[in-house]
Amino acid sequence: MKEIRALAFDVFGTVVDWRASIIREGESLGRRKGLSVNWAAFADAWRAGYQPSMERVRRGEIPWTNLDGLHRALLEELLEKFGIEGLDEAEKDHLNKVWHRLAPWPDVPEGLARLRERYVLATLSNGNVSLLVEMAKRASLPWDLILSAELVRRYKPDPEVYLMAPRLLDLEPQEVMMVAAHPDDLRAAAEVGLATALVRRPLEFGPGRSFRIPESGFDLVAGDFVELAQRLLGREATAGPRRRGAPRPPSPG
Amino acid sequence: MKEIRALAFDVFGTVVDWRASIIREGESLGRRKGLSVNWAAFADAWRAGYQPSMERVRRGEIPWTNLDGLHRALLEELLEKFGIEGLDEAEKDHLNKVWHRLAPWPDVPEGLARLRERYVLATLSNGNVSLLVEMAKRASLPWDLILSAELVRRYKPDPEVYLMAPRLLDLEPQEVMMVAAHPDDLRAAAEVGLATALVRRPLEFGPGRSFRIPESGFDLVAGDFVELAQRLLGREATAGPRRRGAPRPPSPG
Repeated sequence: MKEIRALAFDVFGTVVDWRASIIREGESLGRRKGLSVNWAAFADAWRAGYQPSMERVRRGEIPWTNLDGLHRALLEELLEKFGIEGLDEAEKDHLNKVWHRLAPWPDVPEGLARLRERYVLATLSNGNVSLLVEMAKRASLPWDLILSAELVRRYKPDPEVYLMAPRLLDLEPQEVMMVAAHPDDLRAAAEVGLATALVRRPLEFGPGRSFRIPESGFDLVAGDFVELAQRLLGREATAGPRRRGAPRPPSPG
Repeated sequence: MKEIRALAFDVFGTVVDWRASIIREGESLGRRKGLSVNWAAFADAWRAGYQPSMERVRRGEIPWTNLDGLHRALLEELLEKFGIEGLDEAEKDHLNKVWHRLAPWPDVPEGLARLRERYVLATLSNGNVSLLVEMAKRASLPWDLILSAELVRRYKPDPEVYLMAPRLLDLEPQEVMMVAAHPDDLRAAAEVGLATALVRRPLEFGPGRSFRIPESGFDLVAGDFVELAQRLLGREATAGPRRRGAPRPPSPG
């Protein structure tokens, strides 16, 4: 494996817990507005519309629309479906931008802080730029670079999105490692030459919905970002040139 | 004036002192290689080639080439002109990337740290993405977003470069303030609706080369980034909505 220089992160589900964040904001809105809504079902339905919406853009059925735009069209349908009434335009816009305010999984701050010492850290997300910037600022995510599908007007898994990372960072594809909780995302990245790390996020779709994903075929598998940092930095610490020829620690006994 | 939400920074000359940085690295290289070169003249000649190179791209005389590529073509000419011999390909590449290693003016860390609390901070530079990322990482520049001419394959002062900032940040042009030491850059930004702040950098072209630049016609003029932060944050503190209706402090005596 070639030396990794940059890590490119999927965001929704991998870095942030979209489901719990949407439920939390939905419940707060419901209390203020006196709404009786199953916000977990609402969050799941919103997320379920994500792939089909992007597919319509990818197939050219609708012109390029960024993720805020796709989320908003889906939101209009969901407001109807869940019987949510009485939101004015500013309130709808604010609710739509809950995707800008998603909270990271608990291991993310420590993991990214460690990884940042050694690697260039970039997003590589279908989220639009303003969404990723606002999310990073609110949650103090220390990205060196925001890369978004919006910059090439293509959605993952189109190869142009993945190839943007090595192209703009002036690296070989194998010097960039895609980090994601989703095998399909990683397989598409590997297809164009990127290295891959699977991070397990068993709670992405909520507690009690345990599911198994295939873990073979990736360069690295980790339980969270802290383990990812340990694996990547530990590998360098033991295999890197600085340790070569270093004296061994005395063996116990 | 509309409320400013994001600041977009010119980089070479405005954020970093290209001249002193290149002289410093040149002198170090000269000592190692036993070269006798006037590195100040070398730095000035390299910088002088910058605008004409970009003009050739802007006029379509040569295909899109990022700034690393333009710098490298200029470097080949300069090595010849200054009689610099004996550099292998890796050494030439390293010297070319001195532009990735430029050091910020002394007021920059404090100024950006203060401004970052209130505003989205983006580069808006003709430098390529990998150059801006490496520079930021080395110098701990806390950008929220790297915006580069490379993303739209146009060079400033083409309007597409400036308009990228409000478009990708989902803001009105007047909510973005361009910050630069160069009136031409600011005038082109104002042309497409951005707010403008001139920051004086009288030492950009070296000590003893004092020059006057016109200071009228900009929304704000500051002596450095700390003053820029004081002016912008101070203005909000006194004129912002939160103070409206606040009780006046008791008058002394």
